[in-house]
Amino acid sequence: MRTVVINTGTEILLGDVVNAHLAFIAREIFEFGLRVDEQRTVSDGAAIAVALRDIFSRAEIVFVTGGLGPTTDDVTREIVAELLQLDLVEDTTVREAIHDRLSTRHIPVTKRVWRQAQVPIGAEVLPNEGGTAPGLYLPANVNSAVSSPHLFLLPGPPRELQPIFRQSVAPILRRITAGLRPPAMRKFQLAVMGESIVEKKVGAKILAIPGIELGYCSRPGEVEVRVSGSPEAVEAAERIIQSELADTIFTTEDETLAAVVVRLLSERGETLAVAESCTGGLLSHQITNVVGASKVFLAGSVAYSNEEKIRALGVAASSIERFGAVSEQVALEMAEGARIAAQATHSISTTGIAGPTGGTTEKPVGTAFIAIASMNRTPICRNFFVPSDRETFKQLLAQNAFDLLRRRLLS
Amino acid sequence: MRTVVINTGTEILLGDVVNAHLAFIAREIFEFGLRVDEQRTVSDGAAIAVALRDIFSRAEIVFVTGGLGPTTDDVTREIVAELLQLDLVEDTTVREAIHDRLSTRHIPVTKRVWRQAQVPIGAEVLPNEGGTAPGLYLPANVNSAVSSPHLFLLPGPPRELQPIFRQSVAPILRRITAGLRPPAMRKFQLAVMGESIVEKKVGAKILAIPGIELGYCSRPGEVEVRVSGSPEAVEAAERIIQSELADTIFTTEDETLAAVVVRLLSERGETLAVAESCTGGLLSHQITNVVGASKVFLAGSVAYSNEEKIRALGVAASSIERFGAVSEQVALEMAEGARIAAQATHSISTTGIAGPTGGTTEKPVGTAFIAIASMNRTPICRNFFVPSDRETFKQLLAQNAFDLLRRRLLS
Repeated sequence: MRTVVINTGTEILLGDVVNAHLAFIAREIFEFGLRVDEQRTVSDGAAIAVALRDIFSRAEIVFVTGGLGPTTDDVTREIVAELLQLDLVEDTTVREAIHDRLSTRHIPVTKRVWRQAQVPIGAEVLPNEGGTAPGLYLPANVNSAVSSPHLFLLPGPPRELQPIFRQSVAPILRRITAGLRPPAMRKFQLAVMGESIVEKKVGAKILAIPGIELGYCSRPGEVEVRVSGSPEAVEAAERIIQSELADTIFTTEDETLAAVVVRLLSERGETLAVAESCTGGLLSHQITNVVGASKVFLAGSVAYSNEEKIRALGVAASSIERFGAVSEQVALEMAEGARIAAQATHSISTTGIAGPTGGTTEKPVGTAFIAIASMNRTPICRNFFVPSDRETFKQLLAQNAFDLLRRRLLS
Repeated sequence: MRTVVINTGTEILLGDVVNAHLAFIAREIFEFGLRVDEQRTVSDGAAIAVALRDIFSRAEIVFVTGGLGPTTDDVTREIVAELLQLDLVEDTTVREAIHDRLSTRHIPVTKRVWRQAQVPIGAEVLPNEGGTAPGLYLPANVNSAVSSPHLFLLPGPPRELQPIFRQSVAPILRRITAGLRPPAMRKFQLAVMGESIVEKKVGAKILAIPGIELGYCSRPGEVEVRVSGSPEAVEAAERIIQSELADTIFTTEDETLAAVVVRLLSERGETLAVAESCTGGLLSHQITNVVGASKVFLAGSVAYSNEEKIRALGVAASSIERFGAVSEQVALEMAEGARIAAQATHSISTTGIAGPTGGTTEKPVGTAFIAIASMNRTPICRNFFVPSDRETFKQLLAQNAFDLLRRRLLS
């Protein structure tokens, strides 16, 4: 069923808020076998009518967000009623809910608020526990004289829209889509891969499967591959991905690479310390974003300066002098020093030249070393060259560092 | 000039990524007196052609994001060339740039990458320093046989799109809009403020200025206030903001609060150490995102566990036992310990309960202490209660911590 999202609101078009509704709705409707075919943001007012008229003929389900409140630029309700040639009548239950909400909060009642109790004839009210304006559902062809899709009008604030969606919209969608067979979907998150390499390895083979859909999503240092279609097609695609890329798949769920590392450490009852120079705290930050990190994460040290590498991590001054702070030797000493100081099972260290200055001919901006030290195992060190802006450089190295540890934990 | 943004990419429609382009572009074009009238997200492929054909007649400037990469679903370039009836020819400069980029990074060259060197005749190449696919600018009516708006094709990854926009798109827009009289604009970034408080303090007064436009943009722990209109109106608004909120304004430029702190330290020839428990490395990460941080940032310690607070920061075991790890006393000892060990001018420490577990009746999830220690000055400590999700909690505390130091540096 062709699905369209229309977001209204000048604040979105002015860039004052990032539109989070599309991503929310897209994820919520997936389980019903629906996907958003098109999305538009229009300013308040007449533009809503133009957009609705344009998509009415080719959409089967339409979500409109915003424009249901009490102010003069809130006109979604009136525009829809006019388009569908439906009268608006006051709903006493909604009126009472508004009255109760405002009086408990001692908010003065203005005449405008009662506009929110107006409901087009034939519409179903979707109660709003987080605000005064309820959502509205207008079934397809609610006025038999006008051809129209299933229409959901939802309030603009995410903290109002989201509960209404889960409580009231989802059950209606389940009913509407009862006849559909939702597609199977699988996703694979690949560490330290580029989209073009992934495509070269599996793209053509997967697209040769009849009825398969293939999508990629790249973030610094990782690629998500998504396949959907019939269960058989998805299974065939999964076999291809597993045979070509198995060792790079760090998860098939919604979790970060850092979360996978925390989970693997947790399962093993092992612990981690990190010693960061060029990643500057990003490894610690990503690890501590994971709920439960405190069980495995013992200590982090950000040692930008040589003095700090010597003082906090026990790196030998002679090693820095002889090999330079950005070297395999120093990376290994940082890792070992951090691990022993915190008495951790494993440690990660990073040292490199983030730029934009500080590079040399021998070690240009983008040069970096990552070392992993582990109890009773030989330490490893890898050399990287990832010239990019400062933040991307840090992100790429963090992904490489976590992936090195992930592989060690699994080997 | 009527301006439209078209975002392409199934990953946006599937909700895998939140569309950040609209907000970015809306804010960047503001200074040229432009605003986005309409925005659409369409899936890759034929839908792009449908949307472009639909808006060509009623738009004067169109930005298309995404679909310029090397994979089979990247078809924006080809679709636009077809719509405008322009031949695609290989641009040798782009080809060389792609070749150089891939070879310096030792990325294997696949045949597909050369698609990114194809340029419609008459298009201007907008170089991409962060990736292989350049942006493209097609002037209005580039093919005199086809009526078309000014058309900017931009790569989908924000870290590629944003520099291209600032370096190459902005100068073209300045040229295109030379005839318009752009409004004056000023923005103020306020630390540790909420939008509703800002609005209550200055909203009504500013909106009483004839011809003024007022916009807000909130991020965890900060609010940006933007005013535009005639130079006189903007000046009047600035006076109101300065008189009500001066001490919360951390910048009127595009810089982060961490960058302001680095700049202030740098100007004073002073240095910083941080000791983080609940912010888990975020302070270090934000500081080291700033170019030049290495001059002022001596050492960071992430001490999640009590043992690490004692070992790395010299906190007294008895203080943890008596007051708890989340306490004013421990925050102060962490700050002082970090400062002395690194011999820094200033230090920041954080300790708190990020949640979702670990809270008590006395110290519920969201409780936190931030301390600042400085050479030859009395240390300070502040108590916070910011119950929120883990990442927002970290962000809010980081903003509060940097703002405390900013105020100290200015006092």
